[in-house]
Amino acid sequence: MSLSRYLPILEWGRRYDQAAFSGDVVAAMIVTIMLIPQSLAYALLAGMPPEAGIYASIAPIVLYAIFGTSRALAVGPVAVVSLMTAAAVGNVAATGTVGYVTAALTLAMLSGAILLALGLFRLGFLANFLSHPVIAGFITASGILIAASQLRHILGIAAEGHTLVEILASLWAHLDEVNVITLALGVSATVFLFWVRGGLKPLLRRLGLGPRMADIGAKTGPVLAIVATTLVVWGFDLSARGVAIVGEVPQSLPPLTMPSLSPELISQLAVPALLISIIGFVESISVAQTLAAKKRQRIDPDQELIGLGAANLGAAFTGGFPVTGGFSRSVVNYDAGAETPAAGAFTALGLALAALFLTPLIHYLPKATLAATIIVAVLSLVDLSILKRAWAFSRADFAAVTVTILLTLLAGVEAGVTAGVVTSILVHLYKTSRPHMAVVGRVPGTEHFRNVRRHEVETQPHVLSLRVDESLYFPNARYLEDQLAALAADKPELTDVVLMFPAVNEVDLSALESLEAINARLRDAGIRLHLSEVKGPVMDRLKRSHFLEELTGEIFLSQHEADLHLRKAVTAGAARAASRETAGQARTGTKDG
Amino acid sequence: MSLSRYLPILEWGRRYDQAAFSGDVVAAMIVTIMLIPQSLAYALLAGMPPEAGIYASIAPIVLYAIFGTSRALAVGPVAVVSLMTAAAVGNVAATGTVGYVTAALTLAMLSGAILLALGLFRLGFLANFLSHPVIAGFITASGILIAASQLRHILGIAAEGHTLVEILASLWAHLDEVNVITLALGVSATVFLFWVRGGLKPLLRRLGLGPRMADIGAKTGPVLAIVATTLVVWGFDLSARGVAIVGEVPQSLPPLTMPSLSPELISQLAVPALLISIIGFVESISVAQTLAAKKRQRIDPDQELIGLGAANLGAAFTGGFPVTGGFSRSVVNYDAGAETPAAGAFTALGLALAALFLTPLIHYLPKATLAATIIVAVLSLVDLSILKRAWAFSRADFAAVTVTILLTLLAGVEAGVTAGVVTSILVHLYKTSRPHMAVVGRVPGTEHFRNVRRHEVETQPHVLSLRVDESLYFPNARYLEDQLAALAADKPELTDVVLMFPAVNEVDLSALESLEAINARLRDAGIRLHLSEVKGPVMDRLKRSHFLEELTGEIFLSQHEADLHLRKAVTAGAARAASRETAGQARTGTKDG
Repeated sequence: MSLSRYLPILEWGRRYDQAAFSGDVVAAMIVTIMLIPQSLAYALLAGMPPEAGIYASIAPIVLYAIFGTSRALAVGPVAVVSLMTAAAVGNVAATGTVGYVTAALTLAMLSGAILLALGLFRLGFLANFLSHPVIAGFITASGILIAASQLRHILGIAAEGHTLVEILASLWAHLDEVNVITLALGVSATVFLFWVRGGLKPLLRRLGLGPRMADIGAKTGPVLAIVATTLVVWGFDLSARGVAIVGEVPQSLPPLTMPSLSPELISQLAVPALLISIIGFVESISVAQTLAAKKRQRIDPDQELIGLGAANLGAAFTGGFPVTGGFSRSVVNYDAGAETPAAGAFTALGLALAALFLTPLIHYLPKATLAATIIVAVLSLVDLSILKRAWAFSRADFAAVTVTILLTLLAGVEAGVTAGVVTSILVHLYKTSRPHMAVVGRVPGTEHFRNVRRHEVETQPHVLSLRVDESLYFPNARYLEDQLAALAADKPELTDVVLMFPAVNEVDLSALESLEAINARLRDAGIRLHLSEVKGPVMDRLKRSHFLEELTGEIFLSQHEADLHLRKAVTAGAARAASRETAGQARTGTKDG
Repeated sequence: MSLSRYLPILEWGRRYDQAAFSGDVVAAMIVTIMLIPQSLAYALLAGMPPEAGIYASIAPIVLYAIFGTSRALAVGPVAVVSLMTAAAVGNVAATGTVGYVTAALTLAMLSGAILLALGLFRLGFLANFLSHPVIAGFITASGILIAASQLRHILGIAAEGHTLVEILASLWAHLDEVNVITLALGVSATVFLFWVRGGLKPLLRRLGLGPRMADIGAKTGPVLAIVATTLVVWGFDLSARGVAIVGEVPQSLPPLTMPSLSPELISQLAVPALLISIIGFVESISVAQTLAAKKRQRIDPDQELIGLGAANLGAAFTGGFPVTGGFSRSVVNYDAGAETPAAGAFTALGLALAALFLTPLIHYLPKATLAATIIVAVLSLVDLSILKRAWAFSRADFAAVTVTILLTLLAGVEAGVTAGVVTSILVHLYKTSRPHMAVVGRVPGTEHFRNVRRHEVETQPHVLSLRVDESLYFPNARYLEDQLAALAADKPELTDVVLMFPAVNEVDLSALESLEAINARLRDAGIRLHLSEVKGPVMDRLKRSHFLEELTGEIFLSQHEADLHLRKAVTAGAARAASRETAGQARTGTKDG
């Protein structure tokens, strides 16, 4: 039981049958064909040799099949994670060096270890702190960055940089070195691929293919572009005329590799590895949940962390680089009819065969075609409408998405995602630090109490009733003190304050101490403090402290009861003068609402 | 109007009369006497020359009197801020050097600028992120650190360090150098001062003093200790026998000084200055609010930031170091009858006279006495019972206080307070990331719906009703997705999900997108999504998006209505089979509650 929780393969493997097998094999063949160009392209994006992209798709797929919970997720290099890899590794080593490849292996190892640890300690909730607007802004900005970074392959020039300004400045500086043949190839491939996205599927339908086959056919567009441009470069010997090609790719199964364990390198890559892990996890789990929901299957987020952790460790020891569950490959896998994670294992087999036998065929593949593949893929990620949506929906979300996009573009991926997380947490804390509160009064003739600012209600001048519309904890504890101090100041007629707690779900120690301070200060000023409509769990919590013993007033089950009781107390007592004042006088609210 | 908001002196100054004047003058005389030893002691603690403590009490008091809103707050060097000053400045310069004094001035300047900026931009809420347990833990740990750091003056040895381990190791290493006469003086002074705290006041009462005079008399204990030990050192020429004394103190009004504007120094001191500002502000505002409440006066937190900012800038340009509103001096000021901030100005005058004429008298004052003053003062801050209270009240608060105490002791003040803030924010985010949710059913024969785990209720097998007991925002948006995915998985009979929102006060963009994803996934699985009991502001927010148009189900005013409607829909429709199952079957809850 507990073993099959950590090894989901024991669950689905036991029920594996021939129908599932044939579905899986067909899906694997389709995905394999699609993965080859994608893997080569993302290796280029990550600054790795092309074969690393294929290696990074083999062991990780198998390991995810063993440990992951999604039936359809396809794990391997993806655009955003490859970009982050290039940014992180580029900081510690130069592209094309052995050190670069080793650092990428180390990054994959760290990322795998972090994901595994998060999964084993069930810390998957940490990913929640990446809010949706931050993710949307980050992916959009990353898409722009990636597209900009690939322009150099289309133009056939050398350019560098990890921020938009750096990239554009570098492109500008090398603009006189443009290779026209490369540019022609690159632009043609890009235009073709954009057309494939929209135009190939209808064409295939018109040619008589069924909808599913037309769909799959359309997804093989990148393969067509690769075959065509490779043949052109080979046929016209364009590499002799300056067209950059993929070149020699070893014919080999994934090699066994050893990441560096240098403490210095590890400390340099630790933060990027954490960010890559979390971004990768968030991307992967969204895809997995979307696909699982269609078949009412269940995804266990903590087990997903373990599956992705194993996949990245696999990449680290077999010549790869950081991987995660990719959207496009998973959708193809699902649409092609993958039934179980075994489809992934068959895909791995297909890729291993490709790595052994097909690599000589891509010797003349121009890098411009791979860049075109990347540009077309990532521009579909760019969605600036998130800015408009966030603006319409809430200023807080707009702030988070704007900060994320700007910092990602102008200061790089790590700064962008960090700033986004920090901004959304700060904005959230700011909002909860100023909760809505309302001075309430009785709706005449009823037992209902409403905001004095919004409704015509009756109040008693010696009683201040304040409804708190939020749980009380440290970010807003002092705010309550301030508000009450302000409301109670300069009101000599005030003898009773009632805090109405129907919406208070929690009281933490800070809030408890604030309540104690409020109680003591009001007592010093000769004012009693009462509570009304306190929820059960909050009452239980308060009973664990001395607050209830120190409370100068009472706890009322309802505000109606509090109001009646305090009215009687005055009638019985002497303070008649106060009640002669008009009911409306106590109309003071803290916030509109 | 707006001017008097930024210059509260215009408000109270206009109504200043003779009664207030005489109250203020008496209070000022008492506070002056008490401040002299305290100022010297905290200068020692901060690693500054003794006169700096007096200078730091003069201009800051006057500036606070002009800009501050508290009528009784006394501003000057305080224990915790002096300790933080020593830690911060000790990192960039050696004690006793000109560089040290300059760095302290710079720190005061930065702290003043930060406080002023926070006040002008009304960012005082930032102080709320220091939760009460973190402050309590930090002050307790600081008290222990301070007492330990002063042991070297009592023992008459040289020892260093900014963490408990460093301090104790350093004391241990120099233990063979103990000066016995210093030790005797220091221990006597300490014992005397401890006795003064508890025993002097009753003695003075028995000698016939009134309660107020006895109270004030007891607070002059430190002055007695200083006079007595100074006379002993002078009379027996103990400084020749190795007793460290204060020595030459210039007879001067506060000098005009210029903090360093070196960018390097500023960048080194920026973070400590921020921490000092916030800790100082939190300490000061608590004191100010406590005293103001007694007279139903109002404290404006943002204006307090401006007052404290001005005070620190004053300290920076007149030979001081970072200051804030101190608890003990403010209480004395209040008890002695200070009516307005003018009392502070008179205190400043008294201290200026002391700086001019009394400094030769403290030449022979032993440092051990000042150390004894500090130890006795700070040990009253040490309150480890916060650990017990926090444990009893909530594990989250206990975690925050424990981390703060341990890191302050073992890694220093800056690490301690930072770790405390980070821990309490993380714990808070963790808690809100897993909100309480309950699957609900109808209490038979009523319109009430309760948790199926807690009550005997009726459910319909094709309807899942989930009550969400928290606002929905990014920390918990995905949790809702996970929970719903888990609840809906493997339930082929399910056709309708109702989310009950009576306790949802907010929905942010992340939660909106989660709701959209839930809606889409349920739709793919052939399940409709409904909402019930949505609050007005949340409904307004949802209307700003396309969610309501995409929603597959309906919005019900009450859960009762939802339940009735969905029952009818099935009766009208065909899915009879499902309703034959027993009502209890759908009993699945997400969390106990």
